[in-house]
Amino acid sequence: MTQVKRVYGFGKAADGANNTEGNKDMKYVLGGKGANLAEMANMGLPVPPGYTITCQSCVEYYDATPAAYPAGLQEEIDQYTAELEGKMGKKLGDANDPLLVAVRSGSAFSMPGMMDTVLNLGLNDDSVQGLIKQTQNEAFAWDSYRRFIQMFSKVVMDIEGDLFENALTLKRRARGVQADNELTADDLRELVGEFKSIFASNVDGSAYPGLLVDGKPAFPQDVGQQLRLAIEAVFKSWNNRRAIDYRRMEKIPDDLGTAVNVQAMVFGNKGDTSATGVGFTRNPADGTNEYYGDYLINAQGEDVVAGIRLTDPIADLKKNPEFAAAGAQLDEIFDILENAYSDMCDIEFTIEQGTLWMLQTRVGKRTAKAALKIAVDMVAEGAIDKKEALRRINPAQLDQLLHPQFDPNKSYDVVAKGLNASPGAAVGKAVFTADEAEAAAEMGEKVILVRWETTPDDLHGMIAAQGILTSHGGKTSHAAVVARGMGKPCVCGMDALSIDAKAKCATVKGTDIVVRDGDIISIDGTSGSLVLGSADLIEPEVSGDFGTVLAWADELRTLGIRANADTPEDATLAREFGAAGIGLARTEHMFLGERKAIIQDFILSDDDRTRAEALEKLAQAQVEDFLGIFEAMDGLPVTVRLLDPPLHEFLDSPRELEVEITRLEAAGASNDELVPKRKLLAQIDSLSEMNPMLGTRGCRLGILFPQLYGIQVRAITQAACELKQRGFNPRPEIMIPLVSVDVELEILRKETEDIITKVFAETGIEVDILIGTMIELPRACVTADEIAKHADFFSYGTNDLTQTAFGFSRDDVESKFMPQYLERKVVPVNPFETIDDGVIKLVDAACVGGRESNPKLKLGVCGEHGGDPDSILKFYELGLDYVSCSPYRVPVARLAAARATIGV
Amino acid sequence: MTQVKRVYGFGKAADGANNTEGNKDMKYVLGGKGANLAEMANMGLPVPPGYTITCQSCVEYYDATPAAYPAGLQEEIDQYTAELEGKMGKKLGDANDPLLVAVRSGSAFSMPGMMDTVLNLGLNDDSVQGLIKQTQNEAFAWDSYRRFIQMFSKVVMDIEGDLFENALTLKRRARGVQADNELTADDLRELVGEFKSIFASNVDGSAYPGLLVDGKPAFPQDVGQQLRLAIEAVFKSWNNRRAIDYRRMEKIPDDLGTAVNVQAMVFGNKGDTSATGVGFTRNPADGTNEYYGDYLINAQGEDVVAGIRLTDPIADLKKNPEFAAAGAQLDEIFDILENAYSDMCDIEFTIEQGTLWMLQTRVGKRTAKAALKIAVDMVAEGAIDKKEALRRINPAQLDQLLHPQFDPNKSYDVVAKGLNASPGAAVGKAVFTADEAEAAAEMGEKVILVRWETTPDDLHGMIAAQGILTSHGGKTSHAAVVARGMGKPCVCGMDALSIDAKAKCATVKGTDIVVRDGDIISIDGTSGSLVLGSADLIEPEVSGDFGTVLAWADELRTLGIRANADTPEDATLAREFGAAGIGLARTEHMFLGERKAIIQDFILSDDDRTRAEALEKLAQAQVEDFLGIFEAMDGLPVTVRLLDPPLHEFLDSPRELEVEITRLEAAGASNDELVPKRKLLAQIDSLSEMNPMLGTRGCRLGILFPQLYGIQVRAITQAACELKQRGFNPRPEIMIPLVSVDVELEILRKETEDIITKVFAETGIEVDILIGTMIELPRACVTADEIAKHADFFSYGTNDLTQTAFGFSRDDVESKFMPQYLERKVVPVNPFETIDDGVIKLVDAACVGGRESNPKLKLGVCGEHGGDPDSILKFYELGLDYVSCSPYRVPVARLAAARATIGV
Repeated sequence: MTQVKRVYGFGKAADGANNTEGNKDMKYVLGGKGANLAEMANMGLPVPPGYTITCQSCVEYYDATPAAYPAGLQEEIDQYTAELEGKMGKKLGDANDPLLVAVRSGSAFSMPGMMDTVLNLGLNDDSVQGLIKQTQNEAFAWDSYRRFIQMFSKVVMDIEGDLFENALTLKRRARGVQADNELTADDLRELVGEFKSIFASNVDGSAYPGLLVDGKPAFPQDVGQQLRLAIEAVFKSWNNRRAIDYRRMEKIPDDLGTAVNVQAMVFGNKGDTSATGVGFTRNPADGTNEYYGDYLINAQGEDVVAGIRLTDPIADLKKNPEFAAAGAQLDEIFDILENAYSDMCDIEFTIEQGTLWMLQTRVGKRTAKAALKIAVDMVAEGAIDKKEALRRINPAQLDQLLHPQFDPNKSYDVVAKGLNASPGAAVGKAVFTADEAEAAAEMGEKVILVRWETTPDDLHGMIAAQGILTSHGGKTSHAAVVARGMGKPCVCGMDALSIDAKAKCATVKGTDIVVRDGDIISIDGTSGSLVLGSADLIEPEVSGDFGTVLAWADELRTLGIRANADTPEDATLAREFGAAGIGLARTEHMFLGERKAIIQDFILSDDDRTRAEALEKLAQAQVEDFLGIFEAMDGLPVTVRLLDPPLHEFLDSPRELEVEITRLEAAGASNDELVPKRKLLAQIDSLSEMNPMLGTRGCRLGILFPQLYGIQVRAITQAACELKQRGFNPRPEIMIPLVSVDVELEILRKETEDIITKVFAETGIEVDILIGTMIELPRACVTADEIAKHADFFSYGTNDLTQTAFGFSRDDVESKFMPQYLERKVVPVNPFETIDDGVIKLVDAACVGGRESNPKLKLGVCGEHGGDPDSILKFYELGLDYVSCSPYRVPVARLAAARATIGV
Repeated sequence: MTQVKRVYGFGKAADGANNTEGNKDMKYVLGGKGANLAEMANMGLPVPPGYTITCQSCVEYYDATPAAYPAGLQEEIDQYTAELEGKMGKKLGDANDPLLVAVRSGSAFSMPGMMDTVLNLGLNDDSVQGLIKQTQNEAFAWDSYRRFIQMFSKVVMDIEGDLFENALTLKRRARGVQADNELTADDLRELVGEFKSIFASNVDGSAYPGLLVDGKPAFPQDVGQQLRLAIEAVFKSWNNRRAIDYRRMEKIPDDLGTAVNVQAMVFGNKGDTSATGVGFTRNPADGTNEYYGDYLINAQGEDVVAGIRLTDPIADLKKNPEFAAAGAQLDEIFDILENAYSDMCDIEFTIEQGTLWMLQTRVGKRTAKAALKIAVDMVAEGAIDKKEALRRINPAQLDQLLHPQFDPNKSYDVVAKGLNASPGAAVGKAVFTADEAEAAAEMGEKVILVRWETTPDDLHGMIAAQGILTSHGGKTSHAAVVARGMGKPCVCGMDALSIDAKAKCATVKGTDIVVRDGDIISIDGTSGSLVLGSADLIEPEVSGDFGTVLAWADELRTLGIRANADTPEDATLAREFGAAGIGLARTEHMFLGERKAIIQDFILSDDDRTRAEALEKLAQAQVEDFLGIFEAMDGLPVTVRLLDPPLHEFLDSPRELEVEITRLEAAGASNDELVPKRKLLAQIDSLSEMNPMLGTRGCRLGILFPQLYGIQVRAITQAACELKQRGFNPRPEIMIPLVSVDVELEILRKETEDIITKVFAETGIEVDILIGTMIELPRACVTADEIAKHADFFSYGTNDLTQTAFGFSRDDVESKFMPQYLERKVVPVNPFETIDDGVIKLVDAACVGGRESNPKLKLGVCGEHGGDPDSILKFYELGLDYVSCSPYRVPVARLAAARATIGV
């Protein structure tokens, strides 16, 4: 039986030889940090030696009940600790020359700040004396010890951090100093004592019997025990609340586990020849090819990140004579790393008394803008090819660039920050209730709905608002989920905001800034910002690096991208964004506004003449609609969906009408006034349905009211013929929605063809018109072989298919239980955002069945999933011909489609 | 190239040799009538010779555009006509000794009275003289001619039959006689002239240019033309309205076509030594083993059926010396036929001047009661085996015996008959509007809703009524479809009823019988009868022959039959009917009545204590429920479905509440009164859903409100433990509804098991409890492999699965467009009555997936399809373990399950 290897060493042996067992390709074994430390060691860069406990060990830890180290792990750790002591020539806990180590988490995917780290481990009442001996710096030694106790208490023992900060503050006050580094060695030694007391009185001894000394908990003096507790704490931090939330948001699997890196400490806080810093090989904000980063003299790593002290730009490092050598070496390392990784790297380093140490590197995170520039530059530099460039750009991130944004050339005073829950910026009057939002929106005013947190009761207000701002709730809160579903900007969890809905105002905590009902505010859901007043918004544009990358994507991709657009304006926008046609033009959107009255006449009249007149008016209006859209999409296909929603959607609410009648009755209104209203109510009631989603809609309308589909088909054909005569090349595709049975399509196709033939005869012009159907019901999927016999194309309506496959009414589900379902991981992602694998099985069955009986069948998707990169990959794998999405998502889809061809 | 054979001869040649080309197994070629005529001829029975034109010729006729004889058919007919003339030694149209023929339809399946027949064909102004010469009976000859003209006009030319009846009536009046046979030869000759005039002035000459003589239409004297027109008329009658409706009702395919039988006429109306009759080899009403039937002396076949003259029982035939020989021969033939067919046969015969001729035989239709007795008797006689007996009993027909019925031991005055649209009898006050029906039902009164025809607006009234009676509409009318869906008695299309909804009364046409608002009436949807007053109803019972047949079914079947039952009473009934367990106990039905208030407290309270108290009350009540059901089903499994419907179903209608509030406001009600109502409205609104079918229901409730499922699981377990202690053998199965994702079941199974374990610990008793799920969503079907890992059983909820697979909300679809969909054959059958093949594909996928990952998985069906024989066959083919249906359907299901094993 082969022994499982659970620990990998890295760094130079005592004799200077590289003694590293891992490399950068082992991130699923060693985590990103561990793999990259090994890689840097292999490259000969100065890495403090250490070892990495594998991610699999963490998984094994959780697999045990109760959680526990797998057999043999402790022995392996002990062996590597001994080896590390050998490399360093120091021993953990040694009273003369102690080895101090850092214990750091590091999973396969970067989860910054989500998991735990313990520094300076190995200090105890004995070894602190050794540290004093070695460094001849008593203050440093005691400061290291108190930092260790503080960090260990918080991270490993979960003791409230404020207890230690308060003690520190009291000590500074007592000594009359401003900064921690003004405290003397004595002060710090006293603090160590005080911290140990805090530790002792806040640890539950019964939970940690190993920490009991004379029956009372005490800070552990056994360095082996320190190490074991710290490693376990890192394991445990894999499943802390914020790590779980982060993984859900970033779609990182839960079963990877985290590695633990135990590494010899180096110190950036050993005086003015020491420093610590972070850097990027290029500018991660805009992508400029320059060394980028910050450093702090005489500091430990967390000081840089914490932002308490003002950092210096990394370019200044070399200007400081103390750091000239280290600075020059760092520049070289930047180049070495970028060459090795062929990508922008992000690094952490420490200079200990003039000597540079590399503590971490990884491929760096960057903004969407930077991602594009770096990719384009690196292709120009010959560092990567276009495929690699495309592989590196996350299409979802590009969404940032495709919503209205605060004009970046202006500056804004961000009064508070929250979570960037749904991208895009919005400006409007602050309102504090959903009813007010709705009322204001009905008056034509733009509003931002400001709530503590939203609930399903606020839905109408969310629909009415330009954007949503909440003070509570995370990225899977009701507000966040629903706003993303609606495609509305949303900032949530803005803790700094104290909202008084009754008084209709919100105060930014700790300031005198108050947002009152009706005040204009601006929010940016991409950054999570709140700005007072009206920010200038700019519309997105696809040009420059973005345009270049998309052109590469177009060269590579095989999946067509169309847009969902119902107006000539949307069609034009879609074309600008690179859509190769319209995949879904919803005709019901053309029946709103002033035409609503006409369709009401049709629905409610029982007089054939009135109905015929209404139809004639609609027919004429529809011809204009189609002329506009077909002209905008000259030469490109336009899929027009015939009327889909239940007719009663065009009518007034029966409940409101009945309330109105009741009111009129009570006020003694005349029968002349009441009778027509009562009649109208009866008519509307007779059209109402229990479950309109599953009722008399889609092609069922076409079967019941052939005249309705008739005028639409006539208008499409007439518009196409007229444009052809005027020299255009219209390419209409008529789509019959909600087919569940082949006979529906057979009947309606026949009726459609009859009308087309008639119009051709009348106009003397012929145009190629495809006739197809939307596949959006499970029964259609499993009987696609029959349906395909009557279809030129299938377009998957994945929204409705998701609704019927799951039995989820989107209107009800997203607001009522989807947040809890995501929270409890009942579903891994919102199936209305990324297509579900069960639904994909139905789509797959329909593709197979459809193509089997009709090999020429064109296959596309026109649900909102058509704009979601993860879904696009699945659609590509099914071999679809195209996806269709909202115009603003077209660039994202183009990139995602290209990436799908290289399997990402 | 082989010539297609389109005509088959039958009967003896002139030399007495059998000259028959077909046999009884050729019913798809020759139709039932033609095949059986050939069979009788083969058996040597006295059959008038003739020939049969195949059903395929009819199909070919329709395949041509416009419809036309296939090439060669006319020549083949001419050849067989000539052969027939040879056999008979007579010629069509001959002025000395004319051959007369009958032209009769006859398809593979019996469609009695649906298609056309022409008798006495071959008469014209010349051949009538030949008939006189041959028969020496002038009155008979002229009567035959006038009958021919009348029948030809009506059947072939579609001329209104009343025109001829009126002329006949006028003639009788003019001659002062009562009956047609009192008219003299002269009278009849005059009538022939008058009938020819009626013919001439009612035929559209432009449509029949062949009938023009001197530019005016005339009754055809060319006997070849007569024959050709009559054959075409039979072809055309295949697609007349009533034939199409009948086929739809009986599920007979439309593409079979009808055969045409051309057969030498024999005459039962040649004086007192002639007769005609119909018979059955056993009594078709109750199954008694006796010769059964009626005859009329000196009459033609249609006179017997028309019921104008009083017939004599067939047993009397032999008593008449004129018919002694023929009567004895007939008895022999009855025995020969029953032996040959091993079944009860139905025959038509004519005695022409003492000589017996057989005109038709077929396996006879019989009542459900007769079907059972005949099957049991024949098994006892050794004529058939049990399998064959089961093969012959149509389970759907047994439904007649399983609804409340008019007590057959009492007599009732049936005042009018309509279509038997939905079986069962009902008694109640007649009401004429849906609103009144609802209002009366709310007062606890039983009503019958009487309407011209129902529309979706009447739905609430149909729900409230005991039964539905309409004067218009066929068996696929709105009333019929919806009533069948509801399982309510319905008589529709009662033409004799003249309804004045405004005056609230209905008159039986041609009588002085008036049904007024509030009058008690009784309807029988099994027979289509209306009776005044309160008929005595009897409840169904399974005993005698029915019991015997079901016992045979139980020996043969492998599919288990359970019942859907929610109360101890229903459970007991189900057990009496032979259910082997409860497949679905719906707990929501246990939350109605006085418990509704308790669940309202739970739903609406925001106070934890009130909620807890409400839960406690429900928990106690539920224990009682389960004690009753488990005790009734001692030793048999009981599948209890945890709460399924959306919570707001337990609440008041928000619309009614808002109207009430509006009314109170207008009346100046106090805030004390209004505020709680407004609060309640807001709460109800927050729970309302756009599409409750697809909303927060089923296991989603279990995830959101673990307490609710918690008390149910606890009650089930407590009841089971208590019964076990009392010596019973309770076998609960807990069913979690509406699972779409495996994680739902994983979570809820865990919670369920935890509670069960706790109750076991508390009571010290353990019971075997299975935990499974309802598979009723398409996504669950295609991911059944994942779900099955957490399930002991799957029960297919085919109602909801049909809804989501089709995207059909049953509440909306059945009332709004299902009638039109059936009418236009968009769907072949109502998919809520017989399971659809697309839905079956989903069920199949779930069976395959489920068993793959969990070979021990038990599979059942608890949708209403579980009681439908056609669906049961499909479920059997999928290899399910059991089906569950309403208690009254259990016997039907037992029989259907047995038949499924022999493939019917």
